[in-house]
This record gives sequence, structure tokens and C-alpha cells, in this order.
Amino acid sequence: MNKNTNNETNKITSQKENFSQWYLDVIREADLAENSPVRGSMIIKPYGYALWEKIQKILDIEFKKRGTQNAYFPLLIPKSFLEKESEHVEGFAKECAIVTHHRLEKKDGKLVPAGELEEPFVVRPTSETIIYDVISKWINSYRDLPLIINQWCNVMRWEMRPRLFLRTTEFLWQEGHTAHATKKEADEKTLEMLEVYKKFVEEYMAISVVKGKKTEIEKFPGAEYTSTIEAMMQDRKALQSGTSHMLGQNFAKSFKVSFLDEKQEKQYVWQTSWGLSTRIIGALIMSHSDDKGLVLPPKIAPLQIVIIPIWGNKEEKKVVFDEIEKIKAELETSQVTYKVDEREGRPGFKYFEWERKGVPLRIEIGPKDVQKKSVVIVERVSGKKEFVSNNEISSCVQQSLERIQKTLLENSRKFRLENTREVFDYEEFKKIMSEKEGFIFAHLCLDKNCEEKIKEETNASTRCIPFEDGLDNAGKCIYCRKDALNKVLFAKAY
Amino acid sequence: MNKNTNNETNKITSQKENFSQWYLDVIREADLAENSPVRGSMIIKPYGYALWEKIQKILDIEFKKRGTQNAYFPLLIPKSFLEKESEHVEGFAKECAIVTHHRLEKKDGKLVPAGELEEPFVVRPTSETIIYDVISKWINSYRDLPLIINQWCNVMRWEMRPRLFLRTTEFLWQEGHTAHATKKEADEKTLEMLEVYKKFVEEYMAISVVKGKKTEIEKFPGAEYTSTIEAMMQDRKALQSGTSHMLGQNFAKSFKVSFLDEKQEKQYVWQTSWGLSTRIIGALIMSHSDDKGLVLPPKIAPLQIVIIPIWGNKEEKKVVFDEIEKIKAELETSQVTYKVDEREGRPGFKYFEWERKGVPLRIEIGPKDVQKKSVVIVERVSGKKEFVSNNEISSCVQQSLERIQKTLLENSRKFRLENTREVFDYEEFKKIMSEKEGFIFAHLCLDKNCEEKIKEETNASTRCIPFEDGLDNAGKCIYCRKDALNKVLFAKAY
Repeated sequence: MNKNTNNETNKITSQKENFSQWYLDVIREADLAENSPVRGSMIIKPYGYALWEKIQKILDIEFKKRGTQNAYFPLLIPKSFLEKESEHVEGFAKECAIVTHHRLEKKDGKLVPAGELEEPFVVRPTSETIIYDVISKWINSYRDLPLIINQWCNVMRWEMRPRLFLRTTEFLWQEGHTAHATKKEADEKTLEMLEVYKKFVEEYMAISVVKGKKTEIEKFPGAEYTSTIEAMMQDRKALQSGTSHMLGQNFAKSFKVSFLDEKQEKQYVWQTSWGLSTRIIGALIMSHSDDKGLVLPPKIAPLQIVIIPIWGNKEEKKVVFDEIEKIKAELETSQVTYKVDEREGRPGFKYFEWERKGVPLRIEIGPKDVQKKSVVIVERVSGKKEFVSNNEISSCVQQSLERIQKTLLENSRKFRLENTREVFDYEEFKKIMSEKEGFIFAHLCLDKNCEEKIKEETNASTRCIPFEDGLDNAGKCIYCRKDALNKVLFAKAY
Repeated sequence: MNKNTNNETNKITSQKENFSQWYLDVIREADLAENSPVRGSMIIKPYGYALWEKIQKILDIEFKKRGTQNAYFPLLIPKSFLEKESEHVEGFAKECAIVTHHRLEKKDGKLVPAGELEEPFVVRPTSETIIYDVISKWINSYRDLPLIINQWCNVMRWEMRPRLFLRTTEFLWQEGHTAHATKKEADEKTLEMLEVYKKFVEEYMAISVVKGKKTEIEKFPGAEYTSTIEAMMQDRKALQSGTSHMLGQNFAKSFKVSFLDEKQEKQYVWQTSWGLSTRIIGALIMSHSDDKGLVLPPKIAPLQIVIIPIWGNKEEKKVVFDEIEKIKAELETSQVTYKVDEREGRPGFKYFEWERKGVPLRIEIGPKDVQKKSVVIVERVSGKKEFVSNNEISSCVQQSLERIQKTLLENSRKFRLENTREVFDYEEFKKIMSEKEGFIFAHLCLDKNCEEKIKEETNASTRCIPFEDGLDNAGKCIYCRKDALNKVLFAKAY
């Protein structure tokens, strides 16, 4: 389906030359997604969607283990709902798709919107308002708590500078919403779900992240606080990879989500919400891929092994394919996913194509290999070639896949640490941010002005106050030199 | 979460008294779904959504076995796309949600739509137009065919008389879209996918259906023909339960989906599309449920067995729960889903609640049962009670579940056949349709006028020309008495 591999536009720009073009080239050549005729909305192509399906499957199991129930709420949100929480509407009103009519009618030979709605609807940018209105009727008593709901769905935030996966007007995500009897439980849930994201992103995506709390400026509109995991891409920019919000009682009060406690007294619930979106696929691409194309960690790869038969004539083909049947039988005993590329055509062309798609391992097998009772196994990332005898294929590929998974995470962690600098002087801060970029770890006071000025002057925003070493780490504010209670992670960000 | 079981509104109206109210009562008491603040859109509650998840899982495997690849296309469709296929736009323009603006702005203290779009968008009622525009760029050569794509998503068709699951403005579904080199392949694909639906609905949902072809009036707007499976509900009305459309080259020509064949000549592709929606859950409810509430066939039930411990004091509780651990260990060896209802409270109340939720089997176990080394197993549908000794629980429940599944399908088939009548005289037709209802099998000419008149006069629409006995079964038209080539199934329908 990817026509580009057959024509001249299939070049992948080198990362060093132009990171941003490299990113788009990798997506195109791996056939993950493309722009659509609806500006800002993307098409997730089958190979990209297979990644999303794996993400969904893994996370859904983790959610359900923790008592989460999936449900589905309306796509459209009455405008008046959005208006009920003042910070929330401020945050989302500027980028909403608005439904104003409910049919098309012929007028002067053209179809025009008709059936104007009394109250316009907003296509959900996120669903706190509609879900909390609904669950206010579900919750009566402390016995109905905690309520732990999740939905997998599409959302829209009108995007002026769209970029595949990273910023799209429509995107897919999950949004979890919980209600608790006490603040303590809500605090714990917020961090529990952040940890679920961290584990998933590190264990499966092999992306090392920093856990922390957002500043007031960067938090979710309407939240008491936002916790986040922040990753570093290969261009040393930050990418927020999952957020979990402690909403306090803000929405509960706006939407009257209350319950009778054990003493029969009315209390507002404490709430959390947490989400992870198709944006994470952008993070995956920018964390591991190289100038040869996509690189996928084995645990998230839709396909882990591709087997390439090599033959010159009919007899050879038969010999090779017979041997492949035996290899398949052996692979079936392990839990790896594999595919035989049975197409006609030069092996070199096939290598090239599967490399671009980031398949972690390639097994090459020709007539000589059959004679020697062995195959050649090639690793996507290192390019390392190994001759493996037939009876060791299964154990060898399993070990390789495990090792690759581990190495990718280690590399991600090393790269982040190498490019994270502790800075105490603003001149140095500016110099680093303009030359080396990466993460800067520095003291910041609570004055919003300092944070805004730094962003204006250096293009670096605060990513989070890291839970480790950031919170309650006193010093002098990097900008105004006044007392600061926390150290903050700064970076240019996606 | 279902508060209704605790107050006075929890009555289920009897089917005979008021089928339509009974339907809503069953949904409410089983906690499947509810109306939302957005008129016409429903909330699928966790228990209802669990059904949808099972449906998705089963169908998705069947689709993938047949080479289908999942992908995701934009929610919004440019108005001009809808206009390209004339029959198609006729069919959908009257019931579309239209997006006309992309933000909200403060004006006189109120938020009003702003940022008017140059071209309005339609929230997808179905995705033929946008998908075919996109794949016209994916397909160049016969080597790119067949293309078999599916998406799981939400769609909107503005609904003036909404009804939970059956007619909702927003609903969830899957839509499959294929492109083929030849008419023959497209014809085959159309019927292959209809058969997938039929097997699924019969084997899992235990609903017996009739396969057939829609008449010109009832076909999908823009299709060459529509094939359908039609089921009979317990009120003897029909419910269309899945459709598969042969689109011919209609859309291919409008959207320029062409390819170079082996002779390097340009050809238009032949296309199909096929869909099954959350509507099927309405069919499920109306096929099997009774005055005690929901009835679920075991193969689609999110929970197959509920275990109810019975105890009077602490010692008894310990004895009973210890025994339950052993039962659980035994059940783990079989592939059944079960849950222990560990809540405090009277067993009778629990029986009542799980009956309403349609759980196929209930296992009761009290201190006396522990002594006797046996349990009581009760079937939801028949109410049949059986004492089963502990070492036979696993085999007994498996047999029961299989038998229940089979019986439900047999009952559905029997009921449909008993209420299907062959009629040759229009007076008789009218009498049956007003008194007994059900399906009527009668000859119909190809004149649209006859079909419309019958609908006007009897409220019965054509459901399909059954593949078995309907096509090429000549006789005299039931309405005009002229020659008719086919026999058609008529019914009042949802």
C-alpha cells in the first residue's frame, strides 16, 4: 500500500540535516500515517493503527486490573456544560469544533447547513464536563465510591500548526475519570495512574521518562494539580507522554457531584482524570528511529521477526520453503510474532523495506543456509549479523529481542541524563538552551512572571517539578534570584 | 452504580402489557445504558459497554482472519465530498451534524461560535466518501488489490425519535471498506462478510436470521445492492442486524478510484462496504429477555456464572468462603467467566439483581451445601435448580452453558418460523399484519409503487428478498397482481 517505496520520493532525510523532515520521512516510509483532506486531521494507516491497537491492549489490561470499567459518553458536549468550570472553558474554548446545525438543505442548487440548533454543541476536546454531569446522578452514597471509569475515543482540539501524531485536530486517546470519598484516595489514584503510564512507556516503549508535577501555568485547565511523565526526544526536545490530573473538588462543585457519607452528611467527591493519546506514537518514533527509518522496541512492534527466503530457481525455492516450515514450527513454540515475506523480488529490496518499518529482527535463509542447517539473523538497530544453527533459532531470537528491548531503554535513559544539566546561572541557562538544548534543571520561584519571561527569552518551558529532587529543594530562583522552594525541569518542548 | 434497584422505580413492565416500556425497563434494570443530556445520544454504561467489547473482540478476529486491516480516518467529512455521489448525499444530508465554526468567543458576556469555516464539515454518518477519496491515492496497480480496510468508530445520524441502542444520534460501529479488481471478487466479498455477520449473530448472540437482498427502496444510498441479515424480535417486529453492500463502481467513478490492470489499462475498482453497530445490542435484548429482565446467551455474556455465598455468622462465612476457593480453583481449569458476589446483604436480593443482569448461571452455596459437598446451580432462563456435587461443578456448568446457548438459538429460530407466513392475497396480508404481525413472505413486482403503497397501508416494509426461496421465485405481485419475479419478506420493523 505504500507506493513511495517504488518511486523517487522515498528518501529519508538524515536526522542531523533536518530532524523535522526526517520525522515526516520516517512516518511516510514506514507507512504509519498521512495527512488527510481535512486539514489538521490525520489518517492512521494500518501499520500505525496496529501500534495503537497494541498500546490499547496493554494499557486496557492494566486499567482493568485496577478496577477500571470502560464506558462510552457522547461525542457532543452542550456549550453550557463547558462554561460551568471557568478555568476549563478558558483552556478549551479557543480550539473547539462547533456543531451548529443538524442537516444540509438545497438552496440555489447548493447544499447549505440547515436546522439550526438552539444550543450549539462542542465536539469533545476532553470529557470531564459531560461525564461529571452524568455521574452526579450515579453517585448517591459513599457506597457508590470509588467510581473508576475509562473511555477509549476520539477527541478534537482545533490545531493551527498540525503535525502527524504530535499535534492533530482529531486524535485518539483514553480518558480515565474517577471519583473518591477522600482527598487522600484521589491523590493516591492520581499517582497510581501516572505510575501505570510510566511503567508502560518504559517497559514497552523503551522510553525513559521523568515523573513530576506541572507548574500552575502548565497544568490542566480546572485541575488542582497535574502530574506528568516527560521524555526526551533525539533532538533533545521534551515530549509530555501521559498526564494524570488531581481535580480536587473543582468539577465536583460545578457539576454537583456529591454523596452522603457514613454519617449521612453531604460531601463533594474528589476527582482525578488521566489520559494517554496517539501522540505517544510520535514519541516512540522520535526516541529510537534512525536514518534508515523506524525502529520499534520488540515489546510494542506489531511484527517482531521477518523471515526472508532467498532462492534462484524453483528447486531452491522448494528447499528453502520446506526449511522455513520447520523454522515456523519452532517459532510457534515461543511467543514471538513473525511473518514470511513470500513475495517475488530481490531480497535486498525486502531488507530495505522491513528496515524502514522497524521490524527488530530479520532471518535470512537461502539454499546454502539450508545445507549448513543454519540461518542468518540480523538485528535492525545494530545491524549485527549472526549465523545461528537451526536448533537454536527460537532461543536465540528470544534472547535477542529481550536484549534489544533492554538496550533501547538504557540508551534512552543515558541520552536523557547526558543531556540534562543542572544550572544555577541564567546566562549559562540561555547559552545552553540556545546551543546544546536538552533538559535544564534549575531553581524557580513561584512567581508566574519568571516562568513566562524564561519562555519568552529562551523558548524553554517548564516540563515539571520532578518528584525526585525537584519538590522541596530550596535555592535561589534562576531568573529573579529570590528564594525558590523547588527545582524545575526546563526544555524546549513538542 | 445502578441506583434504581434501591428505590421504587425498579419495576419491569411485563412484555405483554407494553413491549416498548418493557424494553426500556430491562435496559435500566440491567444497567446497560441511559439517555444523555445530549438529546438522541446515549451513554453506554459499563455493563452495556462490556457487551460491545465482546462483540468487537469476536468480530475483529474474524475480520483479521480474512485479511482485513484496521485503520482510522477523520471524523469530519468536507461537505463537498458528500455531494460527489448523488444517491449517497440524498440519503444522508437530512440527518447530519454540521460543524461550521472552530472556536468559541466571548460576546456580550456569552460564549458564541466564532472562526467560521470556509467549507462546513459533516460529522461522518458513514465514511465511504472520505475513505474512497484517500484510497484513490493508495491504489495504483492491480498489485495493490484487493484492499481490505476496517475501522471501529463513532458515527452520527441526527435522530428525531431516539431509542436506546436502536436509534441514537451517535452510535458505535465498525465499517469495512474493500476495493477489488473484478466485479466477481466484490460480489463474493459482499456475501462473505454477510456470512461472517450471520455466523456471529447466530453462534454468539443466539439470534436466528434470514439472509437476503434489499429492494431498491431499502438499499444503502449509493450501493448497487445491499445484502442484509434480518432477525425477528419477541414482539414479532423485524430488526436489520448487519448489512453488506456491493457498491459496484459508483463510488469508484465519483472518487476516481482506479488502477492499471495487467495489460496496463486503467480500470475502476469494484467496492464493498459492510457494517454492524451497537444496534445489535438492542436486537440481543429484544430476542431473549423476559419479564425478569435481561437474558444473555453464555457466549456473549460478560459474566457467565455468579457465585452467591450464603452465611449466617462468622464461622459459617469462613467455611463457605473456604469452599468457594476450591470451587474457584476448579472453575479456573475451564474457560468460563465467573464472579463471587462477596457483598453483605440478603442472598435473595443478590439473586434478583443478577437475574436482571442476565447472568446465565448462578451457583448458591451455604454451610449445609459445604457439609454435603455440593452446590445448587440455577439457570437464569428456565429457573431450573440442580444439586451438583463439588467434583462435577466444572463439567456441569460447561454442559449447561452449551445447552443454554443452543436452546436460545433454537427458540429464536422456532419463534421466527412460527411467525412467518406465506401469503398470496393482499386482504389476508393486511389482516395478518394488523392482527398477528410477524413476517409475511409474498410475491412482489419490481414497481416501487407497490412497495410504497403496502408500507403506507400496512406499516410493513420489505425486509429482504431471501436468498433462499426469495430470488427467482416467480408468481403474481401481492399488491398489483402483475408478474413478479421474486418473493419478498415483509414486516413492521425497527
